[in-house]
Amino acid sequence: MMLRTMADSARFIDGYLLYLLARASSVASAEFHEEVRRRGFNVSNWRVLAALKGSGGQTVGELAAVCLVNQPAMSKTVERLVRQGLVERRADVGDRRRVNVNLTGEGERTVDELISAAKAHQERLIEAIGPRETETLVAALHRVIERSGEG
Amino acid sequence: MMLRTMADSARFIDGYLLYLLARASSVASAEFHEEVRRRGFNVSNWRVLAALKGSGGQTVGELAAVCLVNQPAMSKTVERLVRQGLVERRADVGDRRRVNVNLTGEGERTVDELISAAKAHQERLIEAIGPRETETLVAALHRVIERSGEG
Repeated sequence: MMLRTMADSARFIDGYLLYLLARASSVASAEFHEEVRRRGFNVSNWRVLAALKGSGGQTVGELAAVCLVNQPAMSKTVERLVRQGLVERRADVGDRRRVNVNLTGEGERTVDELISAAKAHQERLIEAIGPRETETLVAALHRVIERSGEG
Repeated sequence: MMLRTMADSARFIDGYLLYLLARASSVASAEFHEEVRRRGFNVSNWRVLAALKGSGGQTVGELAAVCLVNQPAMSKTVERLVRQGLVERRADVGDRRRVNVNLTGEGERTVDELISAAKAHQERLIEAIGPRETETLVAALHRVIERSGEG
């Protein structure tokens, strides 16, 4: 099967699924990141706080994997968030050798505010895509992610 | 509307569309980039050659925008590809002030080989997603891209 657009377009990439995924991800994220910065917040910080929300704590390695950055970069971001009082490091209750990064009370309040903005932005995105199409989109994205065994 | 998965999941990001987009894009691209490297090729080079295929020539600025990198980085990549004989710079026929980057004959042969591999990888991806679901996915991705006015 060829993607429908591949036959219509002169440029190879316009019908190339990996390019469309990268481009859609980039433009949609850039839009919300603009809003994050307007609120005086740092995009790397937002990503870490968002990854922690509801997670019950994550190691630096897990956060690096989730946020798609390398471990040294993630260590620095976590360090900065610790200094800002938004996260704290805590030994895991079940495994003392494991050190989790957790949101502080202040971190929870900050991320909740940003998540409200993220959800409002997402609503607008879903409206543009169409609610039914979005369900198919989300299912398809999950399948791509699970396929790689990284789901 | 909430994404269906948002209610089921404890972690915020597991139901967050921008995260799913970024993650799916990252894992799917990583898989093919692995193959690009196995073939002894550089991923940045592949992206530029792929962007040029069927384009009729692009400026360095256009290539930077398409490949989601900054202009100085793109200049370096183009420089490397010129030295390798895969692309050449040529003044535009219609506008002499405009300098286009074009594939050479050797560049065409190289990119055609990589595009064959990309299409084979894409077929496997489409099989995993489902052909009908892929059509909806592609249409949804186009809508996200066009919405930003960068389509």
